[in-house]
Amino acid sequence: MHIEVIPVEGLPLIHQGDDLAEMICKLVAFEDGDVLCLASSVYSKAHGHTRLLDEIVPSANAERIAQKTHEDPRFVQAVLDDTTDVILEDPFILSETVTGHVGVRAGLDHSNVEDGMVVRLPPDPMTAAAGLRDALRVVCGKEIRVIITDTCGRSFRRGQAGVAIGWSGMTAIRDFRGDHDLFGHTLEITEEAVVDEVAGFSNFVMGESNNGIPAVVFRNCPQWNGHDDLHFRRDEDIIRQALGKN
Amino acid sequence: MHIEVIPVEGLPLIHQGDDLAEMICKLVAFEDGDVLCLASSVYSKAHGHTRLLDEIVPSANAERIAQKTHEDPRFVQAVLDDTTDVILEDPFILSETVTGHVGVRAGLDHSNVEDGMVVRLPPDPMTAAAGLRDALRVVCGKEIRVIITDTCGRSFRRGQAGVAIGWSGMTAIRDFRGDHDLFGHTLEITEEAVVDEVAGFSNFVMGESNNGIPAVVFRNCPQWNGHDDLHFRRDEDIIRQALGKN
Ligand SMILES: Nc1nc2c(ncn2[C@@H]2O[C@H](COP(=O)(O)OP(=O)(O)O)[C@@H](O)[C@H]2O)c(=O)[nH]1
Ligand SMILES: Nc1nc2c(ncn2[C@@H]2O[C@H](COP(=O)(O)OP(=O)(O)O)[C@@H](O)[C@H]2O)c(=O)[nH]1
Ligand SMILES: [Mn+2]
Ligand SMILES: [Mn+2]
Ligand SMILES: [Mn+2]
Ligand SMILES: [Mn+2]
Repeated sequence: MHIEVIPVEGLPLIHQGDDLAEMICKLVAFEDGDVLCLASSVYSKAHGHTRLLDEIVPSANAERIAQKTHEDPRFVQAVLDDTTDVILEDPFILSETVTGHVGVRAGLDHSNVEDGMVVRLPPDPMTAAAGLRDALRVVCGKEIRVIITDTCGRSFRRGQAGVAIGWSGMTAIRDFRGDHDLFGHTLEITEEAVVDEVAGFSNFVMGESNNGIPAVVFRNCPQWNGHDDLHFRRDEDIIRQALGKN
Repeated sequence: MHIEVIPVEGLPLIHQGDDLAEMICKLVAFEDGDVLCLASSVYSKAHGHTRLLDEIVPSANAERIAQKTHEDPRFVQAVLDDTTDVILEDPFILSETVTGHVGVRAGLDHSNVEDGMVVRLPPDPMTAAAGLRDALRVVCGKEIRVIITDTCGRSFRRGQAGVAIGWSGMTAIRDFRGDHDLFGHTLEITEEAVVDEVAGFSNFVMGESNNGIPAVVFRNCPQWNGHDDLHFRRDEDIIRQALGKN
């Protein structure tokens, strides 16, 4: 069965208070089982997960780090406020957020928002995704699966790619444990981060900059089974442990 | 414009000497501009980039590492033979290959191949992708873009995801440098690893195990501009430098 990938065109600039479910349903004839990927930046703007730099007083620690990263200390303070563990301080802040997500500058963003404002990641992205799913069900009567995405850097490979920040109606990981390959061997690779693979392709369709496409629909996308343990715990992450020693 | 994602169903078990372009063109009515993603394992099987464990004599170094990873020393030797730099030895070998790709066990695979055989990554994946593209043009007369993929682990996030190993007819990175956001600001995120985002979604459609879908076609997939510097150089990779200190 062919999968269809449909960019949601025609959304305006999003502001706090906008009803995303209402706006998106006007532009998409949803079908049951569709997957909707939504840029976290747009979710956060609609829900007021933004901060004004003018209202932030940087700590001494933020001032110290800002010297190294050449950033506004108030912005660094906003990053620290959303950080549960600083993994690297420079050349860029790499930090863990409350959900276990590891991202540059805790996922805080200057782009596609008014001057002097920063966009945070949704502080509770799983509840955010579930809430959007419920709202879509109310507005259009369809059972939609939802992924909230962000554009994120990686190790070893240049260039950012989209990843899943929150999701609802699916598991993050497709679990192949117990499956066999074409020759009957037990599989070595058993956990596929499907939610990131879908988020990644949606991020390609969204684009960065002024493309104006913060939402993408996947139709006829297969279902899968698995679990939601998408983030390594600190103590099981080999790379993180090695970094921690420095 | 909707993008269509089409799994290529009906390919048999692939063996050395099989003509992949011929076989795939029998199953797909290609259109100019289609993107074909092909699993590297299948490319390598068709082109004989496999090794028999029985023909490998492990070095003392391979024996030493195999003690730590609890693997067959001959398999470890095969990994070392495809490795230009060992980044981690255990709990799993993480190594750089000749192309700059960083992967667990240098991308060597036991799965979906006869017992006692290992599948290597294509040793020259850019030429491999270009050769497949040329062959497809000869067989079906269409201009196809090609990505050769592998399933690969990541830092910080659990679960494997598909990445691009070789590509032809596109650049790896979409370059947004000089672009502006919806408010006219210069973009901070300027390089998107588009080829990995497409490879990742194809990997989801392929699945692991015995799904039997090593090829996926993307139709109406936009074009982009950029460059092919997908892999960080050793000296510009912050994470790698931190790891190297241990
Ligand atoms: N229509 C519309 N598009 C937006 C808005 N904000 C961002 N976008 C678009 O959504 C996509 C992703 O935006 P980006 O800022 O990269 O979001 P992030 O990846 O979640 O940080 C791009 O195509 C942007 O142009 C908005 O308020 N309205
Ligand atoms: N038809 C067919 N499918 C294969 C063959 N080898 C692997 N596959 C399928 O191709 C997909 C990817 O296989 P995998 O071994 O994970 O490849 P890798 O990601 O490149 O290492 C899965 O759906 C496999 O079932 C083959 O020889 N013939
Ligand atoms: Mn962002
Ligand atoms: Mn983005
Ligand atoms: Mn593989
Ligand atoms: Mn695979």
